[in-house]
Amino acid sequence: MLLTADENRVRTLTMNRPDALNAFNGQMWDAVTDGLIAAAEDPTVATVVMTGAGRAYSAGADLVAMAAGNDGNRQAYVSRHGMNGFLEVLMDYPKPLIMAVNGVAVGIGATMLGYADLVFMSSTARIRCPFTSLGLAPEASSTLTFPRLMGRQNAAWVLLSSEFFSAQECKEMGLAWKVCEPEDLMPTVMTYAKKLAAQPISSLKETKKLISDPLKERVVEVRELENAALARGLGSPANREALAAFKEKRAPDFTKLG
Amino acid sequence: MLLTADENRVRTLTMNRPDALNAFNGQMWDAVTDGLIAAAEDPTVATVVMTGAGRAYSAGADLVAMAAGNDGNRQAYVSRHGMNGFLEVLMDYPKPLIMAVNGVAVGIGATMLGYADLVFMSSTARIRCPFTSLGLAPEASSTLTFPRLMGRQNAAWVLLSSEFFSAQECKEMGLAWKVCEPEDLMPTVMTYAKKLAAQPISSLKETKKLISDPLKERVVEVRELENAALARGLGSPANREALAAFKEKRAPDFTKLG
Amino acid sequence: MLLTADENRVRTLTMNRPDALNAFNGQMWDAVTDGLIAAAEDPTVATVVMTGAGRAYSAGADLVAMAAGNDGNRQAYVSRHGMNGFLEVLMDYPKPLIMAVNGVAVGIGATMLGYADLVFMSSTARIRCPFTSLGLAPEASSTLTFPRLMGRQNAAWVLLSSEFFSAQECKEMGLAWKVCEPEDLMPTVMTYAKKLAAQPISSLKETKKLISDPLKERVVEVRELENAALARGLGSPANREALAAFKEKRAPDFTKLG
Repeated sequence: MLLTADENRVRTLTMNRPDALNAFNGQMWDAVTDGLIAAAEDPTVATVVMTGAGRAYSAGADLVAMAAGNDGNRQAYVSRHGMNGFLEVLMDYPKPLIMAVNGVAVGIGATMLGYADLVFMSSTARIRCPFTSLGLAPEASSTLTFPRLMGRQNAAWVLLSSEFFSAQECKEMGLAWKVCEPEDLMPTVMTYAKKLAAQPISSLKETKKLISDPLKERVVEVRELENAALARGLGSPANREALAAFKEKRAPDFTKLG
Repeated sequence: MLLTADENRVRTLTMNRPDALNAFNGQMWDAVTDGLIAAAEDPTVATVVMTGAGRAYSAGADLVAMAAGNDGNRQAYVSRHGMNGFLEVLMDYPKPLIMAVNGVAVGIGATMLGYADLVFMSSTARIRCPFTSLGLAPEASSTLTFPRLMGRQNAAWVLLSSEFFSAQECKEMGLAWKVCEPEDLMPTVMTYAKKLAAQPISSLKETKKLISDPLKERVVEVRELENAALARGLGSPANREALAAFKEKRAPDFTKLG
Repeated sequence: MLLTADENRVRTLTMNRPDALNAFNGQMWDAVTDGLIAAAEDPTVATVVMTGAGRAYSAGADLVAMAAGNDGNRQAYVSRHGMNGFLEVLMDYPKPLIMAVNGVAVGIGATMLGYADLVFMSSTARIRCPFTSLGLAPEASSTLTFPRLMGRQNAAWVLLSSEFFSAQECKEMGLAWKVCEPEDLMPTVMTYAKKLAAQPISSLKETKKLISDPLKERVVEVRELENAALARGLGSPANREALAAFKEKRAPDFTKLG
């Protein structure tokens, strides 16, 4: 589920469920969250890089399957952390965290970028926040972190439209910090990560805490509002139409709904 | 005062007082505010577009005339909404709101852009926030929404200088999301508006509320501070010099004032 | 320590300790702070420009020397304002304040830019926030003002990496508003400053207060958190290694520290 590699005080965590496009199920929430916690606690790690194995960064949590009663948490395996535990760890993450988006990033695969200190994207990667197209609303406090990163207008379009966005568009909007050719992605990320990792861990932690703490209270408040909206959305007429269209392999038609 | 057109769940509201460059008087505040409320309540409308008839978007409220006792509210017609009612509706607007700036936008014509989810500008359009040149201070919570959209330095220059800004400058600063050739403005706006309007209204409303609610309390606080500053400005030596210069068709000279 | 010149209601304050690259010692804190206060109170001044004499803007407070017991405050001269007094005045500065970065800006020379209404940089100028490389954490509320100006990712890289940044990079990140050829810097700055200074001082003050007040409470809170982090950093193993390396003219090695 998760590959771990260390080099010059940089720990690289690779989400490794390539056949499922690194989608999150119960085991995956735990593997990634435990990996992040271990890196945070390890005194030999100064900077953490997250990336994905194969052609995707992460296809996100399969919300459609979730609503159909087929999610990881309702399988035999009971996740200790779940998505909320994963987000708690991201929000409070004490060391510099770089996300290297090697391929498609959907749902939580995209919204987790709001917690990164630096986001690098392969020029072939794309992101999508498909919440409205599922009859739902955004998660992971992206309604707060995305406007901060991109300005209200870019964030509104990304979160309202359910469109795909290219790496170059993400760069122009402010979600991605650098775009690299696919073969240059990890070497470039490592160059920047090693520069950070050469600084004292104590100073990196103090600085990161100072930057991220002022927003923490709002992040928690917004996530609760988002979760309430998500609960209203699940099973709503729009959500049922999205799921029916998915099963029937047709485009959803929301225009009959008020 | 207001033209209304519907297409694919997109309602277009066209400010229609072209001989007055779509400046707001009492009737206009009511027509536009009522049009926005009706679109918000109409279950067949998913997205709203605001634009202007003729060569202007809106010349704003005529503050010079207002100070001279010649504003809409003091004419025979008593506005039910006024500028504050218009701003209340914009602040709480429940559906995606796109502003298509077809021509010059001055004062509230420019500051209302701070409430848009997306701003498109014709390449020939220009904006101006002339408050300091009138001896006054900004309104419509633009001292909060503009720094959020453009960063403090761009917002400071726009609000302090009273200069005109081209569409391209607005794009570079982050106030405009896209700039289009004049003939492409409405077709482009409609393409984006229809993509939003194809999503479920319930999800559009939840998402918009999540994005805009965290700022609402601050928007109200700032508007009260701005209104107090505006009250101090009206009739002040600087404001009197601005009005005198306007009447005498000369440039104002504020350099004698402390 | 400070040169003062007036032209068309624009007061230019030139930090004038060129042999020390305009680094701040006790006398310099007082000269610059007193100069800012005098310009704020002078009814003939509408806009203030800060720049540096010689090839530097300001090399900042010499933290290495400070930690070694060699700072201005511990010399014969006791500063009345100190860095905290300087920052108090910057935070509450009532008139438009333009910083014209003519050369290298390090430490407080760079973090003070977070309080400017407009930042112009010479194309040959560079900035550096070296706090992590000294085993310390950022100051001057830069952990709040920099993310606001540049977005979280740019601010994280600037504050975590201790790297130098060119004027062009500062422009792209949003820290600098305009970049000018060295010989064009002051003429360009004066053009913009005079446009502001032609507006009524009363309106400039009201507008600036409206823009900067909403952030003031947070700025004070964050500065206290930063000062606590700075106190933890001084004398820490990382800080001792930085000072030892400085004395021994070698690169510091923080990789042995947890």
